[in-house]
Amino acid sequence: MLTNASRGWNTLRINGERFRANFEALSRIGATPAGGVHRPAFNAAHQTARQWFLRQIADSGLEASVDEAGNHSAILRCGQSDAPTLLLGSHLDSVPQGGRFDGALGVLAAFEVLQTIKDAGLALRIDLEAIDFSDEEGSYVTLLGSRALTGKLCPDHLETPRAGRTQFEMALKQAALQEQNIFAAQRDFAHIAAYLELHIEQGARLSEAQQPIGIVTAIVGICSYRLNFIGKANHAGTTPMLRRQDAALGASAFTLAARELVINDFPDCVMNVGQMEFAPGAFNVVPEKVSLALEFRAPDVETLDCLEAALLDKAVCEAQRFDLSVEHEFVGKVPPAPMSQDIQTAFIEACTQMQLSSMSLPSGAWHDAQSFADLCPTGMIFVPSVNGISHSAEEFSEWTDCVNGANVLLQAVLHLELATT
Amino acid sequence: MLTNASRGWNTLRINGERFRANFEALSRIGATPAGGVHRPAFNAAHQTARQWFLRQIADSGLEASVDEAGNHSAILRCGQSDAPTLLLGSHLDSVPQGGRFDGALGVLAAFEVLQTIKDAGLALRIDLEAIDFSDEEGSYVTLLGSRALTGKLCPDHLETPRAGRTQFEMALKQAALQEQNIFAAQRDFAHIAAYLELHIEQGARLSEAQQPIGIVTAIVGICSYRLNFIGKANHAGTTPMLRRQDAALGASAFTLAARELVINDFPDCVMNVGQMEFAPGAFNVVPEKVSLALEFRAPDVETLDCLEAALLDKAVCEAQRFDLSVEHEFVGKVPPAPMSQDIQTAFIEACTQMQLSSMSLPSGAWHDAQSFADLCPTGMIFVPSVNGISHSAEEFSEWTDCVNGANVLLQAVLHLELATT
Repeated sequence: MLTNASRGWNTLRINGERFRANFEALSRIGATPAGGVHRPAFNAAHQTARQWFLRQIADSGLEASVDEAGNHSAILRCGQSDAPTLLLGSHLDSVPQGGRFDGALGVLAAFEVLQTIKDAGLALRIDLEAIDFSDEEGSYVTLLGSRALTGKLCPDHLETPRAGRTQFEMALKQAALQEQNIFAAQRDFAHIAAYLELHIEQGARLSEAQQPIGIVTAIVGICSYRLNFIGKANHAGTTPMLRRQDAALGASAFTLAARELVINDFPDCVMNVGQMEFAPGAFNVVPEKVSLALEFRAPDVETLDCLEAALLDKAVCEAQRFDLSVEHEFVGKVPPAPMSQDIQTAFIEACTQMQLSSMSLPSGAWHDAQSFADLCPTGMIFVPSVNGISHSAEEFSEWTDCVNGANVLLQAVLHLELATT
Repeated sequence: MLTNASRGWNTLRINGERFRANFEALSRIGATPAGGVHRPAFNAAHQTARQWFLRQIADSGLEASVDEAGNHSAILRCGQSDAPTLLLGSHLDSVPQGGRFDGALGVLAAFEVLQTIKDAGLALRIDLEAIDFSDEEGSYVTLLGSRALTGKLCPDHLETPRAGRTQFEMALKQAALQEQNIFAAQRDFAHIAAYLELHIEQGARLSEAQQPIGIVTAIVGICSYRLNFIGKANHAGTTPMLRRQDAALGASAFTLAARELVINDFPDCVMNVGQMEFAPGAFNVVPEKVSLALEFRAPDVETLDCLEAALLDKAVCEAQRFDLSVEHEFVGKVPPAPMSQDIQTAFIEACTQMQLSSMSLPSGAWHDAQSFADLCPTGMIFVPSVNGISHSAEEFSEWTDCVNGANVLLQAVLHLELATT
């Protein structure tokens, strides 16, 4: 049986100097005084970064391609006409005043993998494509590019962009994109072998466990509700404490109890109360209504459903405790995206071969990878984020970890090439 | 020693039919479809109510007077040139969409007491004045009329009226008041013997204890703070539950703990968390800051100070529990207004004489009486509010209780007339 070792490919490593030079050049585009980057999708700096990427592709001798959704790709063809494509991707856009690593590191690692394989002259039987997706961060439409490519974009998404229609139309114009053509970016998955992504963790689990590589088991599903605790407005001076129907008590007790529930009974999950709105909202009136924004995440469908039921039940219990009623408004749900077991195995083998330890963990954040999970074998690795800080100029990953990550991605690609063909 | 009984005055009673006819006539002015009244200070209905009051004064043969703050009075002179004045008052304005009893009952009871004494031809040695104060409810400036009369109004109060300067200026014009003259309403307290007020309880303590009369021991002091619980904004998906600095947890825990503190350790006090503002306030971001509106009330200065210290300490404890900091911004403090012991005794004697039971209790709400408490002997009685409902069309008091209250006020006036002279 062929293996990377038997082919002599197991010692192949990326060019760390080139990878770093590219990372530093890219970090200068849209750089902020605080040390991060400001590259929201389609702004001037983002466009400049994409032009820079196209120049690097041209200089490397790889094929360049831009699709109808503005996704930018470097392609390494194997030369066989019907060869499947293995996609490696992430994104060059950032949140406003974001960090240098989020997204950019994954695109550059994918690009570096292709250059390394090209430079080594390996004869693969699959095409490789390093892709930079449009608007992963959702300045306008979250995961716009990967949703378009996977056929998951709906006209509704384009009708209600976050920054508003006018801004969106201007942004598309600046990016020379035709709105009606975006859907044409959809690919035929009969020709996609797999999708792989390297990303920073954006959390502190790897650094705390002192693990250089995280193997993503699933991208968590997200569910959100608005919970309205309803009591009775009353005079805050004349109404005795024990006769109040104070909506603040239900909302407060729920916030604390929901946290305990997740910590004790759902250790793989998280929940957040991100907002409360009080009515009538005066110093001297007992709150009649508190409207609470609840979000929770779980790594698999069953757990997400269980957690949903347990949280809604907890809301009713806490409301009753304080003589309140509670209404829940469903806001939205994104199902969990489990990562391919085969690809997790390929990543683990790559780590073992490189004598790197690794840790399996779910991703609490969204990534382009989730657009692919039900269409083709999909996998992700994380490299550690120092102190778990992300979406901030302080976002940082040790360069050794970045290089290790890119090499694990390279070796996993070579493993998969064997398995695929 | 002279007593009401020895003078044969102990059997004097108000004219219940006239009192009721006046109450019903007044309730029609600004009546709402829901069964309440809408008479915010200086609106058309409030002006009509005051014109109606002046006509009733004229018809009764009492002297009418309107001062520079728009306070409207009926006066019963004793005929002695240097006689002190015993003031009986309340207010004809209402909160928006308010009830028929709040304020109006006290003005009509005071007016009825004067008419009854005049009709009986009693030879008093003091002047009696039944006064309707301007804007007790604070459509523009809370307690405007009684503050002006007691010299407690500041130019600042007039500069920052609740409904805004433009509206306030229009309102003063409609009421034919000159802003610069309002301060001239201040009286010389060398000539004020006492201030008495009858009011509905606006709470359910009397009805629950089945007591027809409440003797007010003090009007509670009120203190308010804005508490800012401060943590760290973070990704609600990738930040582990136990590593968050979630400002919502401190604010929620404080809300529950502060309530327990008051119930267990400060049974005469109340507290309210009437508002919370979250930042950044998104479903998917761990709250960095929750700004909480705290108000608390106590019947005496020492208790108010103790409660203030205990609540601020509780905020620090709960913040520390969740790895947060807390800042407090002082918003305001109104000291408690203790009622005169002599006047409480006069009310109790009046009740005893009328074979009515009574209950001593602090007032959790503000009243015009608190403007007077440090300037002259001041006292208040409450009549029961059915179900404690107030500031609502559903506000209701049994008519028997209203008549009893007016008679207790009458007898207390006669007791005090003896004591004063």
